[in-house]
Amino acid sequence: MKNAVNRDILDELLKNGKEVYQGKYYMDGKYVKKDSPKSKRQVKPQETKLCQSIREACERCGAHDGMTFSFHTEFRDGDYVASMVAKVLVEEMGLKDITVAATSLGNAQEVIATYIEEGKIIGVQTSGVRGKIGEVISAGKLASPAIIRSHGGRPRAVEAGEVHIDIAFLAASTSDIFGNAKGVGGKNNCGSMGFAVHDSHYADHTVVITDTLVGFPNLPSSISAIDVDCVCVVDNIGDAAKISTKEARMTDNPRELMMAENVAKVIAATPYFKDGFSFQTGVGGPSLAVNRFLEKYMVDRNIRMSFALGGTSSAICELQDKGLVDHILDTQDFDQGAINHIFKHPNHHEIDLSEYANPANKGAYVNNLDFVVLSALEIDTSFNVNVITGSDGVLRGAPGGHPDTAAGSKCCIIVTPLTRGRMATVCDEVVTVATPGDCVDVLVTDYGIAVNPLRQDLIANLDEAGIPHVTIQELKEKAYELVGVPDKLDWEDKVIAVVESRDGTILDVVKQVKPFSF
Amino acid sequence: MKNAVNRDILDELLKNGKEVYQGKYYMDGKYVKKDSPKSKRQVKPQETKLCQSIREACERCGAHDGMTFSFHTEFRDGDYVASMVAKVLVEEMGLKDITVAATSLGNAQEVIATYIEEGKIIGVQTSGVRGKIGEVISAGKLASPAIIRSHGGRPRAVEAGEVHIDIAFLAASTSDIFGNAKGVGGKNNCGSMGFAVHDSHYADHTVVITDTLVGFPNLPSSISAIDVDCVCVVDNIGDAAKISTKEARMTDNPRELMMAENVAKVIAATPYFKDGFSFQTGVGGPSLAVNRFLEKYMVDRNIRMSFALGGTSSAICELQDKGLVDHILDTQDFDQGAINHIFKHPNHHEIDLSEYANPANKGAYVNNLDFVVLSALEIDTSFNVNVITGSDGVLRGAPGGHPDTAAGSKCCIIVTPLTRGRMATVCDEVVTVATPGDCVDVLVTDYGIAVNPLRQDLIANLDEAGIPHVTIQELKEKAYELVGVPDKLDWEDKVIAVVESRDGTILDVVKQVKPFSF
Repeated sequence: MKNAVNRDILDELLKNGKEVYQGKYYMDGKYVKKDSPKSKRQVKPQETKLCQSIREACERCGAHDGMTFSFHTEFRDGDYVASMVAKVLVEEMGLKDITVAATSLGNAQEVIATYIEEGKIIGVQTSGVRGKIGEVISAGKLASPAIIRSHGGRPRAVEAGEVHIDIAFLAASTSDIFGNAKGVGGKNNCGSMGFAVHDSHYADHTVVITDTLVGFPNLPSSISAIDVDCVCVVDNIGDAAKISTKEARMTDNPRELMMAENVAKVIAATPYFKDGFSFQTGVGGPSLAVNRFLEKYMVDRNIRMSFALGGTSSAICELQDKGLVDHILDTQDFDQGAINHIFKHPNHHEIDLSEYANPANKGAYVNNLDFVVLSALEIDTSFNVNVITGSDGVLRGAPGGHPDTAAGSKCCIIVTPLTRGRMATVCDEVVTVATPGDCVDVLVTDYGIAVNPLRQDLIANLDEAGIPHVTIQELKEKAYELVGVPDKLDWEDKVIAVVESRDGTILDVVKQVKPFSF
Repeated sequence: MKNAVNRDILDELLKNGKEVYQGKYYMDGKYVKKDSPKSKRQVKPQETKLCQSIREACERCGAHDGMTFSFHTEFRDGDYVASMVAKVLVEEMGLKDITVAATSLGNAQEVIATYIEEGKIIGVQTSGVRGKIGEVISAGKLASPAIIRSHGGRPRAVEAGEVHIDIAFLAASTSDIFGNAKGVGGKNNCGSMGFAVHDSHYADHTVVITDTLVGFPNLPSSISAIDVDCVCVVDNIGDAAKISTKEARMTDNPRELMMAENVAKVIAATPYFKDGFSFQTGVGGPSLAVNRFLEKYMVDRNIRMSFALGGTSSAICELQDKGLVDHILDTQDFDQGAINHIFKHPNHHEIDLSEYANPANKGAYVNNLDFVVLSALEIDTSFNVNVITGSDGVLRGAPGGHPDTAAGSKCCIIVTPLTRGRMATVCDEVVTVATPGDCVDVLVTDYGIAVNPLRQDLIANLDEAGIPHVTIQELKEKAYELVGVPDKLDWEDKVIAVVESRDGTILDVVKQVKPFSF
């Protein structure tokens, strides 16, 4: 069955009420009965929830074959906890048929790739899939298709009961002995724990893992003790220095800076750019750099941002410190500057993934967003964006908040160079649709700007401001002229991943690429 | 069937898995599958959730015959919102067969008594029942027995699905247009909104009612916009000046002060009185006065309180400002001093009823409490306490956090005069059991102190400290000697209220008193 982005979705994937993507507002106003955890009552006075080891916590929480465990990735490439836990479950306890429910998967969790190859881990539900894990899944080694969701789609799926978490293992920078936990005050701080909070509410069992035990009560906390069964203390939960990876760098590439400047120009040309506007950037080089160009326009026109949303970097914190941003609503921190800033500034707030982007609650912040600036691995002439698979068809990306903010915002701007190496970024048809074209408004490249024809209002705004723009077809032609028409990928029949829209409908599938070799 | 406090519970009340009270730890460790709301998805960008009227909000949220609505009573005797809403549902919309789920009911909601008499409101689930509402229920005018629960029992019942709230109407001192709401910053402030938070998570629909609309985002908030369907602005949500009623006064009665001093002596004689102890008082005059005597012992021994729990008054805020209390964990504020203090002191925190006392989560704060000082309408020689019915058998009280803190704390002290008017407070058998005797450790009266024989350790502590004590039988004899043996109440067969233990088992029933006249 074809969906609204023209992808064929096999009937076998449309079980248990699953539907195909039918446009960005298809689910609006429909009711959902939320799922809920099966929780252990604590009636007696308690002395402590401390366990001697992660294994003891696993046993107390009834770890078993066929279970689903979750973890968050606020520590990004510096996360130690997911691997520790996977090792205990698989190697120490010998469990099998395990499903992983992660906010992302990358090099820090590489051991999971091995367990997938060994058939111990048979299911993966995640936003990002990068590195070795992406390769083994792309090679067809996972027993069932990986389910890839956006940051808003994840809490939606948890609340819908499509992911029921048996045990959530949540790395926390500090915790007291009862599990009041947060991302600051420890020896390895991640700042916001917005990726972890929702799991603590919906998992049957929650284990807090920390390297810095503090006095009770550790308040205000991100994770409340009422949701925590066990607390484990380990030497190090992660390497906070690795949180800031190259994705979060501020670019000094002149081509990226030029694109960033053009993005700011586009923003300033729209009617949404007025006092009290709201804004989010992704972590790509040119996206982050938009902050610095936007500042000039804000000062010139004497306007302030009401809130900056999502993943947070020092750049936006500095804008707040200058008085240009009223509130930062922070789901994760990309660098030490942001980690040191959250909770220090009275209006730099932690929010969780449901507040951020869940399209099945009563109004996530993305639904109030004016502008979002996002990157892309590919974008096609229907404005569909791929941030999941490389041009070789291998899983190596993450939708993250991309589809959520694109759908919710009034003006979604994609910024990307026209080509990367020998690959066209703008193309006839993206390998994988992560964000549907009906959510994307403007494309800014190093070879020109294109506006989605659905947004004639924005076209008029750009014309009025004297900002030149072309059709996306012209940009694609230019890209093909520069690097050639991309070769068609050759796929096996096997579906190795399902890409869900933020509302739970099926947006696309990823098949196994052939011939595929490491 | 007799329960563990020797009360006969009719079989007809033991449906749907209901059990009789079987001791304070009976439910410990048992699993519960939590209930959850049926929630309306908001996928589209939103402009506002403001409604023109409460009626419009009711209609948008599908108000219907047979529905259950809830509200909180942080404004105590100054609450306007519950009555406003009840009038809209019953008088404007003409709905019938309505159930009320309240954190308490008193004079501020008197209109509900009329609707009970008229048969429009057919069910009541509450903690407190005072004033006219208590009288009409006691007169048998409610169609089904009222269900009376403690503050911890309420969130437990909601999570168990025993109370499913169709619409929660939550008074908030401030809100933005999307429903981020809190109890400070407005023209009528209640401080903590700890009674409201849990409802916002579990109700199918949530309506925030405020008299002070503020800019978006109103953060940090007590109620999150993701749980809110509608926002209504009214002239006044309440009269904050009426929050501090006589229950919250600081006594100057010498007899009460003497009892308070003796309570402090008992506390200081136990091994739990050491640096980092935790403490809660009720709102009765002598209970509140304990704070001032405790201060002396704390200073003398150079010890500090790690946390003060529960309803909060200026007295404990002043102790915190003097550096004697590390944290205040605040479910409701009893006076303006406390309202002005919460959120100003960095360690004066709002907590919700589930964090406070829910015995079905993974560890409420009451389970970590060292001392609680509570009042009583009656206490019997089995140490069972009545805080629900007057000596005439009419509903005129509230369990509140009484049973929760008594059960969770290491040392529960009841402080009460031996007689009130011509009534014995210490008696053979309380009219209604609100807090079972196995949760009560010490009784302090103006005629002496008695220790529960279950607590031989505390008896030894008092002996060691040279604090005289007698048996509770002796206190009862003294009371009867002073005011005579109480007359037996004459009951109809009709059960007008069921008193649930905090764990959901049935502790007692209240029958209709005969002859009964107003």
